[in-house]
Amino acid sequence: MSFWEKFLGKTARSEKDQLFNDAIANIVGSEPKNLDLFKLATLHSSIGSITKDGFRENNERLEFLGDAVLSMVVAEHLFVKYPFQDEGFLTEIRSRIVKRETLNSLANELGIPKLVELQDRTKGNRGNSIYGNALEAVIGAVFLDRGYTFCKKFILDKIIKQYLDLSLLIHTDTNYKSKIIEWAQKEAKEVAFESTNQSNTLASHEFEIALLIDHHQISIGTGTSKKRAEQEAAQEACKKLKLL
Amino acid sequence: MSFWEKFLGKTARSEKDQLFNDAIANIVGSEPKNLDLFKLATLHSSIGSITKDGFRENNERLEFLGDAVLSMVVAEHLFVKYPFQDEGFLTEIRSRIVKRETLNSLANELGIPKLVELQDRTKGNRGNSIYGNALEAVIGAVFLDRGYTFCKKFILDKIIKQYLDLSLLIHTDTNYKSKIIEWAQKEAKEVAFESTNQSNTLASHEFEIALLIDHHQISIGTGTSKKRAEQEAAQEACKKLKLL
Repeated sequence: MSFWEKFLGKTARSEKDQLFNDAIANIVGSEPKNLDLFKLATLHSSIGSITKDGFRENNERLEFLGDAVLSMVVAEHLFVKYPFQDEGFLTEIRSRIVKRETLNSLANELGIPKLVELQDRTKGNRGNSIYGNALEAVIGAVFLDRGYTFCKKFILDKIIKQYLDLSLLIHTDTNYKSKIIEWAQKEAKEVAFESTNQSNTLASHEFEIALLIDHHQISIGTGTSKKRAEQEAAQEACKKLKLL
Repeated sequence: MSFWEKFLGKTARSEKDQLFNDAIANIVGSEPKNLDLFKLATLHSSIGSITKDGFRENNERLEFLGDAVLSMVVAEHLFVKYPFQDEGFLTEIRSRIVKRETLNSLANELGIPKLVELQDRTKGNRGNSIYGNALEAVIGAVFLDRGYTFCKKFILDKIIKQYLDLSLLIHTDTNYKSKIIEWAQKEAKEVAFESTNQSNTLASHEFEIALLIDHHQISIGTGTSKKRAEQEAAQEACKKLKLL
């Protein structure tokens, strides 16, 4: 350690580490306290090793943690932002935010791919979610490095508000009913929505609608209006028919 | 408002509200600040109404929020408690904690059913998760009432550590391989595990095992030992065969 390093209380950092530190500081919005957390967060399993004490050195554990933090921060954000929307709406919009495609594209916006260490042959794999997963791991690292409140602010200010158009996300492709009808026309099937009352937990103000394809019941939806109940039934049917 | 109520800064509380307040304080471990949050958390949709401004007055939004908080607190707890376990283990144990049966039984332990308001005809429905959902809603209410740190302590100290035997949860029924073999014997099918190397993202220290039933490949598992890879393949097969 040089005099100046001792004097400043710092140990020497390689140029590579310094560049990595600056890149993370740029993404997170302030200097990381524990750079090793972020090194781990960007270490893909194709290259990570196993330490003597059996610890798998890759970003998968941090990804698990970051995924949970992200889900909760997004849940709270939507809960507060949309006080008059029901839990079906909140669940749907959250799933659009945390789904693979969105996370991969956010990771690209943030410049995560340049930081991830992985085996060359892994890079070509299209359709996988290496970078979206690494983004979740980085979120896990931010949470461990700086705590919940800081991490929440990081997710909202540096990711969601910066790169996501929530109202676009909400209005894209919500119309499951027209999706089903379109599909049925193409497949020459007959779609019908019928009022029903099969479940005995229905409240007096709720509607229940069954969706039938060629006279076979495919799904049931409930809601506080017929339109909502139809949408729910259609959404369920889209899932079953793998149209989503 | 009486002189004493004004003097003490309190409004009169009905006896019913006072009993409800005491029951919540007993569950949460300290007096609730906003009792209305907990009233909403215990209001099932079979009885909840819609207010003039279109707000659905029932516990489903709070359930959405509480579910996210619980998932995250459990994720962090497991992450810290099991530093040498991989994300597959963490995911599996978390799903055992937050699954319907566990939440329903925790709700019973905490005395939630006595507090939930719902239509009489709904009560008989076995196999549903009214009380487990209400527990999640109560967690959401605690989070809004007292913040993240308090809510985390509530979940860990008053729920997880109090009523869950984690090591029992971990050692119950983890053996997917024997589950598959048992099933195959009963169904007179032939099960085989074969080493393979189909995916090109496999790290040098990882094993890949395919599970075959009557010579058809059902699933693939990877892991840092053959045993782990077999378990993963067997778990995947159990899911596909709906044996879980």
